[in-house]
Amino acid sequence: MENYVKVFAPATISNVGPGFDLLGFAIEAPGDIMIVRINSNDSLRIINNTNYPVPEDPEKNVATVAVSSLLKYVGIKQGFDFILQSKIAPGSGIGSSAASSAAAVVGVNILLNNICNYEQLLSFAIEGEKLSSGSIHADNVAPALFGGFILIRSYDPLDIIPVRYPESLFCIVVQPEIEIKTLDSRKLIPKEFPIKTMLQQCGNIAALIAGLNTSDYALIGRALDDVIAEPIRAQSIPGYYELKSKLRENGALGGNISGSGPSVFALASCKADADKVASLMRKAFDNQNIKNRVHISNISNQGTRMID
Amino acid sequence: MENYVKVFAPATISNVGPGFDLLGFAIEAPGDIMIVRINSNDSLRIINNTNYPVPEDPEKNVATVAVSSLLKYVGIKQGFDFILQSKIAPGSGIGSSAASSAAAVVGVNILLNNICNYEQLLSFAIEGEKLSSGSIHADNVAPALFGGFILIRSYDPLDIIPVRYPESLFCIVVQPEIEIKTLDSRKLIPKEFPIKTMLQQCGNIAALIAGLNTSDYALIGRALDDVIAEPIRAQSIPGYYELKSKLRENGALGGNISGSGPSVFALASCKADADKVASLMRKAFDNQNIKNRVHISNISNQGTRMID
Repeated sequence: MENYVKVFAPATISNVGPGFDLLGFAIEAPGDIMIVRINSNDSLRIINNTNYPVPEDPEKNVATVAVSSLLKYVGIKQGFDFILQSKIAPGSGIGSSAASSAAAVVGVNILLNNICNYEQLLSFAIEGEKLSSGSIHADNVAPALFGGFILIRSYDPLDIIPVRYPESLFCIVVQPEIEIKTLDSRKLIPKEFPIKTMLQQCGNIAALIAGLNTSDYALIGRALDDVIAEPIRAQSIPGYYELKSKLRENGALGGNISGSGPSVFALASCKADADKVASLMRKAFDNQNIKNRVHISNISNQGTRMID
Repeated sequence: MENYVKVFAPATISNVGPGFDLLGFAIEAPGDIMIVRINSNDSLRIINNTNYPVPEDPEKNVATVAVSSLLKYVGIKQGFDFILQSKIAPGSGIGSSAASSAAAVVGVNILLNNICNYEQLLSFAIEGEKLSSGSIHADNVAPALFGGFILIRSYDPLDIIPVRYPESLFCIVVQPEIEIKTLDSRKLIPKEFPIKTMLQQCGNIAALIAGLNTSDYALIGRALDDVIAEPIRAQSIPGYYELKSKLRENGALGGNISGSGPSVFALASCKADADKVASLMRKAFDNQNIKNRVHISNISNQGTRMID
């Protein structure tokens, strides 16, 4: 038995269109690569080999908070090192903290001979997310753990639904280098909504699921608007609405803000269209002298897993 | 060319669980049977051969209001008689007014050699519904016209989505003899909702569509709750929550109020379960000395159509 394991956890797009707090999916890359290693000093220790600053205090790091929750549940006292080899850029809205939480709990679970199932791992990873966003939300951690497109029907009780999606479905995501903290970003969301707004969101999320389930690409595109977070968060992304308005004529089904931003994602039904969208996204931020990275990926049906 | 046509329009269950104003389906029976006949006096005339009282003033009857809207659109001046042969009980929450509107516009359209398509007929029938409920809602008229399970993604622009549903899906509906006016019932619905409530409704309607699309019967059952209208309208239905709490142990996937009530519907995956549910529903109201009728039906993929 090895005393360490190397784990990959994928980036995830959450708040997918009308799916605020409810809908997310995993992409193939980028992702976190983490080595989880048993140590002999009973402590949870972050060893950060990436260029991104991450909290090293185990009470302030999402990975160690998630693992503490796991260890408390199973009643085991054991120390682990979490060696961060490669990291999704934090604060960019594609599930960096979720990937850390997911990688850590999956790594520890493997080293403890699969003492928990993935539903349990999800509840621990959610504890990590709570630290980063100040609220319980699972639309990054659930797809990070399970892969695929995941709907959270309910938080109380937690009810996670894998959503059937078309085989050919590409995600294009641009990460502009502007940092938005999820914690701050949530405070701006209104506490109440008029019934008319509620019905718009309900209509769109229902239609988005119908489009995904039946491979109705046009419907997927029509259903991607959001009335909860998009109007607020768009303000922090320079040129967002101009970019969004050009997505469809450049091959996308539609798009929206990823997570709490500033990343923007779009969906396309084939690689050729995805390439056109990627080029549009890159130019949109290059033209504003905002550094950015663009990823093209299939929706990934693989979640967090051991690699090598 | 005949100068009359006999039309059948099915009853419909609207506000399906979390689908307030957004989701409805057609059942096989009961329904309206209406003869639409060309007359020579340029007027729209209701001839009521049923035992139910219906408004005979053409400005106050949903059927004639819908047809006026059609005739105005196509620019034709022609009188029609609408002979009501058989009618869904008005005010019982299974789409009585929608069936009247649908039957009338379909009948007139046939007599005018299909001058309009069904999308156009829908917009005219909605005008009839507006009269009966005081608001624009299409979750009765759309399934009454098209048949099947219909999602209204959006009202502006109107976007009607046929929803894939399991081949074996039964609806059981009980009509207790208590009248609730849709017009009054709407006034009691709150104007604003907390975001948490909104997310519950979004999670359920999304899950309901996923369950219907993938024949996940258990998910359909879990997703049938409603946070908008059910808490208000349940108060007018004696013994509603007691009945609801017994549905599942008696074979139903779940159930809710049909339309604005007082009818209550449930879904079941097979006829044997539907029979058990029907018996439960009948007893629930018999025990309270409330007259009632119970119908068992498949979801009907047929909408309003010529018969005989």
